[in-house]
Amino acid sequence: MTVPATLAELRAAYLSGRLHPSDVVAELLARASRTEDHAVWIHRLGESRLAPYVDRLAGLEIEGAPLWGAPFAIKDNIDLAGVPTTAGCPGFAYTPERSATVVERLIGAGAIPLGKTNMDQFATGLVGTRSPYGAVRNAVCANYIAGGSSSGSAVAVKLGLASFALGTDTAGSGRIPAAFNDLVGFKPTRGAWSTRGVVPACRTLDCVSVFTRCVADARAVAKVAGAFDAKEPFSRHVPQKDFDPANARFGCFDPATLPDVDEGFRHRYADFLAALPVRPQHIEATPFLAAGELLYDGPWLAERYAAVGAFLEANPEAVHPVTRTVVARGKEPSAVDLFRAQYRLAALRRKVEEIFADIDVLVLPTAPKVYSRQEVERDPLGTNTKLGTFTNFVNLLDFCAIAIPAGSTRAGLPFGVTLASPAGFDFALLNTAGRLLGGPV
Amino acid sequence: MTVPATLAELRAAYLSGRLHPSDVVAELLARASRTEDHAVWIHRLGESRLAPYVDRLAGLEIEGAPLWGAPFAIKDNIDLAGVPTTAGCPGFAYTPERSATVVERLIGAGAIPLGKTNMDQFATGLVGTRSPYGAVRNAVCANYIAGGSSSGSAVAVKLGLASFALGTDTAGSGRIPAAFNDLVGFKPTRGAWSTRGVVPACRTLDCVSVFTRCVADARAVAKVAGAFDAKEPFSRHVPQKDFDPANARFGCFDPATLPDVDEGFRHRYADFLAALPVRPQHIEATPFLAAGELLYDGPWLAERYAAVGAFLEANPEAVHPVTRTVVARGKEPSAVDLFRAQYRLAALRRKVEEIFADIDVLVLPTAPKVYSRQEVERDPLGTNTKLGTFTNFVNLLDFCAIAIPAGSTRAGLPFGVTLASPAGFDFALLNTAGRLLGGPV
Repeated sequence: MTVPATLAELRAAYLSGRLHPSDVVAELLARASRTEDHAVWIHRLGESRLAPYVDRLAGLEIEGAPLWGAPFAIKDNIDLAGVPTTAGCPGFAYTPERSATVVERLIGAGAIPLGKTNMDQFATGLVGTRSPYGAVRNAVCANYIAGGSSSGSAVAVKLGLASFALGTDTAGSGRIPAAFNDLVGFKPTRGAWSTRGVVPACRTLDCVSVFTRCVADARAVAKVAGAFDAKEPFSRHVPQKDFDPANARFGCFDPATLPDVDEGFRHRYADFLAALPVRPQHIEATPFLAAGELLYDGPWLAERYAAVGAFLEANPEAVHPVTRTVVARGKEPSAVDLFRAQYRLAALRRKVEEIFADIDVLVLPTAPKVYSRQEVERDPLGTNTKLGTFTNFVNLLDFCAIAIPAGSTRAGLPFGVTLASPAGFDFALLNTAGRLLGGPV
Repeated sequence: MTVPATLAELRAAYLSGRLHPSDVVAELLARASRTEDHAVWIHRLGESRLAPYVDRLAGLEIEGAPLWGAPFAIKDNIDLAGVPTTAGCPGFAYTPERSATVVERLIGAGAIPLGKTNMDQFATGLVGTRSPYGAVRNAVCANYIAGGSSSGSAVAVKLGLASFALGTDTAGSGRIPAAFNDLVGFKPTRGAWSTRGVVPACRTLDCVSVFTRCVADARAVAKVAGAFDAKEPFSRHVPQKDFDPANARFGCFDPATLPDVDEGFRHRYADFLAALPVRPQHIEATPFLAAGELLYDGPWLAERYAAVGAFLEANPEAVHPVTRTVVARGKEPSAVDLFRAQYRLAALRRKVEEIFADIDVLVLPTAPKVYSRQEVERDPLGTNTKLGTFTNFVNLLDFCAIAIPAGSTRAGLPFGVTLASPAGFDFALLNTAGRLLGGPV
């Protein structure tokens, strides 16, 4: 059986009566069994656990349920009621009584949760290899990393195991795996989608994100997932702002001076810029890169320690050695260091606001390069830091962003770009990405 | 000569030609000489330094200059070009080339700066006694503290040495001295008035504030002082929001259960509430008081250390011993402690938002009691902490506030209340205070 590739096609098939959710679920279970060597899942729901989700659709009018029968995967740091949440660490696992707010909203709109996906432990990493459940295998070039931390969710979508999948994104975890698996990865404005029921990485920065095969699907999920959540202190009212996607003013870094990127990526980036409907402006990279460096070099690591430091101190053996090293550094900085970094960030935000007076959308390579699994094994910290060059600053500067596929290099490596705009331009950005990619928007 | 008591009267006198700014300045210089035992000033401008400010008014149309000829005093942690800024610490002094943004704006509107006022060193304190320039003497009850840290500015206004005076307000420094000297003290929304050119206390919380003899004067100053300042990272665009001051919904703490307040204050507070045009709602005090406790017990002290810690380490003898003790504690907390406190604050803000769904204005005693200078000398830390009970939480919770006089106790002590509303209700709050006090609004 063929499961339609996009949500719109799937919905059309349901509406016509050609397809029933139980057929889709059966097919996806079979596919999942055939792809177990990709290490996509931490917990998969079996037929009996899925049945109630399918059965209840009989009582849910499809007209009022925009995600009726849409199967989705959930990164395993996001709660699904009754299923363990491990955050990639078996010793940390707990079984939540209720689902995360975002999961509740999706299920409320008719979506079917298939299970919990593999991830870099505690969402600390951009590689997709820091998991006791196995390194996730890239869906398009097997020797390369899948990217993380939302590795399993991205690969689930690329392999056709789900229509869409939830990730989380603090430093780029919802965008890097999209780039490395030739997918769309949408990261909303901080606070626009509730993080209630999500294991924190950096609570002040964390976002829930989504991987899809096209921009229209990301928009469909965003319409359901986003809402103010009075019960989550970091949820925000995010009034949507607009620019005209047909006349968006693009900004970019000069491809010739991009710091230390793969040459194939550099060329594909230049090609992407050349194909834009309007010539992008070259903007100064420094304030963006300086903000990004604050994230892993600086006191924001303390948020990771605040989240899981006590567990790590009590159960050092339960934690992945690289993750342990990274998180343990979070207890070092002082509150003075943190305030100084927050002052620096505030000054950088001001500079960036000035830049955005002249542009609507920043277009950058999602990642500077992609590494083989061996390269990451040899230098787990250095490669990881490098991967975040163009993603780390996004949440610190309060942007929304969408990673989109942008072809592949001559060496056959998938290349992606990310479009980013200030808080509140989520749908303007989705519309812009849709226009650039063509296809259904 | 009589200098008119309010800005409106002063302006009328200027417009009619009855009065000239040079007469006013001469009279205020004479008054300042007669009141030197109040320890109001750190640097006073003499006749020759004042002359250029007066002379240039000849070339400034009074119609377009709302503060034309209005004499004002400046707390000595706010820069005035060419005059030393000490922040209450002679060894820390520097002479700025340009004035603070707010001072520039006031002078641009025709105001005349008279000098720099005494203060609790580094704006750390609510007492008005922590200064090597002498403890400021209360203008209405000599044995009692003037309140701080903007002690000199408040007393300057009460003694008639200036039409208005700038203070700063992080934990209550712009409100406590208003209460203890029978004045209006207005503290705008954080970021609404630029803090550029102000010695930081807690940079993320600091506000410039103003002391006046009536609400209308505070409004006149606010109209000039408030503006977005792209050069100050903590400046904000603060769109003004409104409620109907004639139908404002008031919230209060139950006077009977106020923690540890002076009995006279308790009665006057109950009287004030009883005289409100509508019956106030009793609201839960806990989230407000819990937020306040974060300020001096918690990691926000690290901001004070970030600001002056290096100076203090290099010049311990130059710093007031109590101030040294307080600021030095700021190097202790970790970034983890700070993030945890920021999480706690975010949760408290959410609770407070729910409370403000039912009220527009919170009405509280400005201070729980007033201390004699001897009481503060005996227990400088304990008394200070106590004084902030109803003021500490205001900036943390992102409120604007106005302290207004509310009579005096049977023992003759001045009593004041503070009205507070969420960010952006600055002018709605000023209008409400004006209606409650009567007189010119």
